[in-house]
Amino acid sequence: MKGIYYDGKDALYREDIPMPVQKAGESLVKIRMCAVCNTDKEVRKGYRPDFRGVMGHEFVGEVLDSPVKDLIKKRVVGELNAACGKCIYCKTGRPTHCDSRRVLGMSDKDGAFAEYMTIDTDLLHVIPDGLPDEIAIFTEPLAAALEILTQIHIFPISALLFTHKRVCGKQRADTNLAIENFNFQSSSDKNAAVLGDGRLALLTAQVLALTGIDLTVIGKHPEKLELFKPFAKVVTQGEREGYEYVAECTGSETGLPSALELVRKKGTVILKSTYAGKLSLDMSMVAVNEITIVGSRCGPFEPALKLLLEGKVKLPPIELYDLMDFEKAFASRAFKAGFTV
Amino acid sequence: MKGIYYDGKDALYREDIPMPVQKAGESLVKIRMCAVCNTDKEVRKGYRPDFRGVMGHEFVGEVLDSPVKDLIKKRVVGELNAACGKCIYCKTGRPTHCDSRRVLGMSDKDGAFAEYMTIDTDLLHVIPDGLPDEIAIFTEPLAAALEILTQIHIFPISALLFTHKRVCGKQRADTNLAIENFNFQSSSDKNAAVLGDGRLALLTAQVLALTGIDLTVIGKHPEKLELFKPFAKVVTQGEREGYEYVAECTGSETGLPSALELVRKKGTVILKSTYAGKLSLDMSMVAVNEITIVGSRCGPFEPALKLLLEGKVKLPPIELYDLMDFEKAFASRAFKAGFTV
Repeated sequence: MKGIYYDGKDALYREDIPMPVQKAGESLVKIRMCAVCNTDKEVRKGYRPDFRGVMGHEFVGEVLDSPVKDLIKKRVVGELNAACGKCIYCKTGRPTHCDSRRVLGMSDKDGAFAEYMTIDTDLLHVIPDGLPDEIAIFTEPLAAALEILTQIHIFPISALLFTHKRVCGKQRADTNLAIENFNFQSSSDKNAAVLGDGRLALLTAQVLALTGIDLTVIGKHPEKLELFKPFAKVVTQGEREGYEYVAECTGSETGLPSALELVRKKGTVILKSTYAGKLSLDMSMVAVNEITIVGSRCGPFEPALKLLLEGKVKLPPIELYDLMDFEKAFASRAFKAGFTV
Repeated sequence: MKGIYYDGKDALYREDIPMPVQKAGESLVKIRMCAVCNTDKEVRKGYRPDFRGVMGHEFVGEVLDSPVKDLIKKRVVGELNAACGKCIYCKTGRPTHCDSRRVLGMSDKDGAFAEYMTIDTDLLHVIPDGLPDEIAIFTEPLAAALEILTQIHIFPISALLFTHKRVCGKQRADTNLAIENFNFQSSSDKNAAVLGDGRLALLTAQVLALTGIDLTVIGKHPEKLELFKPFAKVVTQGEREGYEYVAECTGSETGLPSALELVRKKGTVILKSTYAGKLSLDMSMVAVNEITIVGSRCGPFEPALKLLLEGKVKLPPIELYDLMDFEKAFASRAFKAGFTV
């Protein structure tokens, strides 16, 4: 079959890749469409040096064969981490962190940049009727943005408007901090910022915006920031200590130090960016100012499919190429590029 | 009056300190006992270069005068951060992070190492009858340990025993990951570790132990670790990726990198240590492994007083010196040293 193969050095278009063979529990999927993720570009650069095989993990496919007969002929998307089911992480509800997970197109498992693919059946999710492939292809990255809501409780506004009096004390004095200091806060007393204006930022910002929270997107590219205007304020420079939640989606190592400057005391930084290398950080400030930093990665598919079906998340069009022209998709500057298969 | 005064260079015993004068809303307190905190030692080293005045913030006192008449003659402890009541942090329930807070014995406010002190009345908490000064003096550091419980939900055991099946998926396959893989986890599927064996670690470990969670204390000093044995396993070397929660209480810059190695994926590191300087950290690992880091500082006094009154927290004896002999208290290697006044 045709596919894009990583041989340990680079990505190659090949037409002689053997058809995949279903193992017990797996379904056979015919790929309809797949999309290039930044991780695929990293794989080409050697991010997973031990990997050899078909690349790609964002796909829309059709089930040709499956141990679950109801799935056959259904359109599906699929999660990328195949878990062992036996380790501490699998047994405690964290299969995406499985000690020996195989990862589509990245680790010990052929991926989706090909005509056919096999995949653990319980990783598949049926695409609802009425949701076109060009939208469903965003399920995996939107799920990663939704992961934030499974990790922390985003308060869209503070329940505490004026609470100078200590929460935990019982004796209360009539001090001279009189009632005239009281005023209702604007909605900005609980607010969020997204740092970055790329693909990850676009989906993360919309997930946060759906909570109704006051949202600011801080980016460097005025043309990209246009896409965020329907649901967020857009600025090129954030306000120091200005935000309760800061989602770091820059993909750059300068992002986290900036996020720690932008977040309020007792606020939360959501760390979405990954990159090679170490960072030099003042972690005492994190303790003294009681900042919370939450690392965030892959997320749940079902809420992503639901939001996509309901049209609650606006997506840019996806640029599609023939599998043979994969270099064009990899080089595309569109928000999302991929292949029809 | 007598007191220990910081003159910008060092701590001095003086007998000519003027009596403090109550401002509106303040109470006048006669100090009965006070204790040396590590922060006091840092103040001597220049941690707060602008501060001049009476040092100290951990105290037990008696109210001599107050706008709240019921407080007069009562024994009290007090919080150290006097808030403005007007800034964003005060108005949203975070007075300990007030932008212009004055801090007892550290910032723009005379402290407790003296015969008398004034303090904002709403910072005071009445000590229950039957709770001796030597125990009540631990209220402030125990409150700081309890701050953890106001920030995160410590699950003493996992509700999820075998959840290989995805939480968010609907179609489920009968894969070959069969039921024989199921086994009930030991309590260690949710567990906690405290890194450090000093004063902060002793109180933090006990607060965590009171949730019933499986607890390990990782320290370097076998003689100090003895104190932890009634409520925790004690080891000198932790298990890599072995703990859901790791409370970093070493007070050293080597603590956080160790904590990040000890914590499980999707686990939580509680950052209690503060120290000067920056740390070099692999923060990509925090994103990929979805680690949460929670900075934690001052906490609530009332639950601390309640636990102390009920005898739920075991404390080492406090070594007490005369105010004049403050150098002995500062140099003491006891878990806690202080002054009678």
